[in-house]
Amino acid sequence: MAGYVPGEQPRDGPFIKLNTNENPYPPSPKVFEAIRQSLTGDQLRKYPDPVGVAFRQTAGRVLGVDPEAILAGNGSDDLLTIITRAFVPEGGLVVSATPSYILYRSLAEIQGARYETVPYTSGWQTPEPWPIREAHLTFLANPNSPSGTMVTWPLVERLIENLSGPLVLDEAYVDFADSHGLHLAKSGKVIVTRSLSKSFSLAGIRFGFAVADPALIRELIKVKDSYNCDVLSLAAATAALEDREHLQVTRAKILATRQRMTHELQKLGFTVCDSQANFVWCQRKDRPVKPIYEELKRRMILVRYMAYEGYGDGLRISVGADQEIDCLLDELKQMA
Amino acid sequence: MAGYVPGEQPRDGPFIKLNTNENPYPPSPKVFEAIRQSLTGDQLRKYPDPVGVAFRQTAGRVLGVDPEAILAGNGSDDLLTIITRAFVPEGGLVVSATPSYILYRSLAEIQGARYETVPYTSGWQTPEPWPIREAHLTFLANPNSPSGTMVTWPLVERLIENLSGPLVLDEAYVDFADSHGLHLAKSGKVIVTRSLSKSFSLAGIRFGFAVADPALIRELIKVKDSYNCDVLSLAAATAALEDREHLQVTRAKILATRQRMTHELQKLGFTVCDSQANFVWCQRKDRPVKPIYEELKRRMILVRYMAYEGYGDGLRISVGADQEIDCLLDELKQMA
Repeated sequence: MAGYVPGEQPRDGPFIKLNTNENPYPPSPKVFEAIRQSLTGDQLRKYPDPVGVAFRQTAGRVLGVDPEAILAGNGSDDLLTIITRAFVPEGGLVVSATPSYILYRSLAEIQGARYETVPYTSGWQTPEPWPIREAHLTFLANPNSPSGTMVTWPLVERLIENLSGPLVLDEAYVDFADSHGLHLAKSGKVIVTRSLSKSFSLAGIRFGFAVADPALIRELIKVKDSYNCDVLSLAAATAALEDREHLQVTRAKILATRQRMTHELQKLGFTVCDSQANFVWCQRKDRPVKPIYEELKRRMILVRYMAYEGYGDGLRISVGADQEIDCLLDELKQMA
Repeated sequence: MAGYVPGEQPRDGPFIKLNTNENPYPPSPKVFEAIRQSLTGDQLRKYPDPVGVAFRQTAGRVLGVDPEAILAGNGSDDLLTIITRAFVPEGGLVVSATPSYILYRSLAEIQGARYETVPYTSGWQTPEPWPIREAHLTFLANPNSPSGTMVTWPLVERLIENLSGPLVLDEAYVDFADSHGLHLAKSGKVIVTRSLSKSFSLAGIRFGFAVADPALIRELIKVKDSYNCDVLSLAAATAALEDREHLQVTRAKILATRQRMTHELQKLGFTVCDSQANFVWCQRKDRPVKPIYEELKRRMILVRYMAYEGYGDGLRISVGADQEIDCLLDELKQMA
């Protein structure tokens, strides 16, 4: 087993990092304030709240869902791991659409389960009928990575009807999209997962949450580590979720840059999907893009190179700050 | 499956908490400083170092081990989970001594594995010969909870020789003991786990680490979540481990209180093991102790009540601050 290999994380050096979909803007000032207020001897020396009651209440209010329907996690990867352990037996079956988040395969492998994929249609939609009904767990990243595209809601709903088991609707990038599927969590067959890493600029503190039927959440709580979220990340996440204005301001900047870079990359000869996430997926019809990835790296710009059988290769480029994207576009023009 | 139920964590109210082995003293001032220095927009918005290189280097230097032999985790529970997933197949066998940390059973159950226990001798030692050689994973908490006792090192070494599979030497409490077993991690058959929750007063930030053969650590890295430790806890843990003086000062205070409370509790009629941890295990020969637990709770003092088949019931009482222990002893005297 190879294990999941995350994007390169150079610890120093003047790299422009457009490879792991980090937000180029800092988190809300209220996050810093909340962490500072939690920095007391008593908070650090005591165990944190096992389920994060205060976070659940705030998230429930902000998102309009029952607090008992929310499970906090140490990054959304923690939640995907908990869900896999809860639903998938050894030798069980995990399914996702492909090309998609390659962690799903690693989760299946670590669990000793089989992993099968269902190819997206050429328009990055789920095929009808969905061919594998009997999975123990089905993952759908919506928006999807690396494409940045979304499956339409009627298609998602018919997929859910079709499945005998639960669907994980991985909404790590949904705050950059036009719509979300939180209402589907009420069905009892859907677990929506969210991350604060991207839209809330909090990759460093590791925080995500899941939304599902409260009875299902209670089962997941039995599987998670007792104290999976620390006191500082709980405080940070609660403050971040409350500051809707900060989210809207940084989101608007990222969406404007995304539109501009999509247009410019297309002018440079790339095929670029219309993205609903904070990255764009760039392919070339005329040639493989690995040399472009390598040349950009030499020029101190990191993007994510990915190749999927039947889909060719491509560059997944995070929507950075305008200045970073200007550098990227300049280098690409020089290389053309 | 019931899931592991941690000790009660009242979020407010004037309880004296002697039930979850938290350290009564605050963490090192250097921990606060390190967290404050990491509180920048860039640190929070970027993913943390996946393996915590800086922490590993510091821990390696301080503990005198190869940094590649160290794995950082989101609390030592995260490490125990990772180790279980790496070594134990569904239907596999997990073994521990009993009475001991009840999480081991939960980990086996979540993994779909069988769980068997080997009773400690009346002197809280491992029996010879150890009767279950063929476990996929064997846990030994040393010092043990709830007894606070330690198995002697010759016995531990013979246990390791006897086992066909790996031994997890759970040293969550070892900083309060007279000796430790870190040297055993070199054998390739032992994984030592440590926690910063107790001796370093950092239960709130969730940090632990494992020490084992570097080849074994590389396998565990494949199983862990990619970014299992956040940037603030990595900074806090690194600073905590470096401040040996703070550890020695708080440790000395806790050991002095432990000695005093052991003596006083014995005078009150409890049978109290000599403890090598930051708690004491108190039983009574004359009567069950559940009513004492309940009466203490009514009097706003929380201790941990535990009952083990064949060993009777007891109170596991954390070594709190002197003032807290004085209150406990006063209430117990009034109740006598």
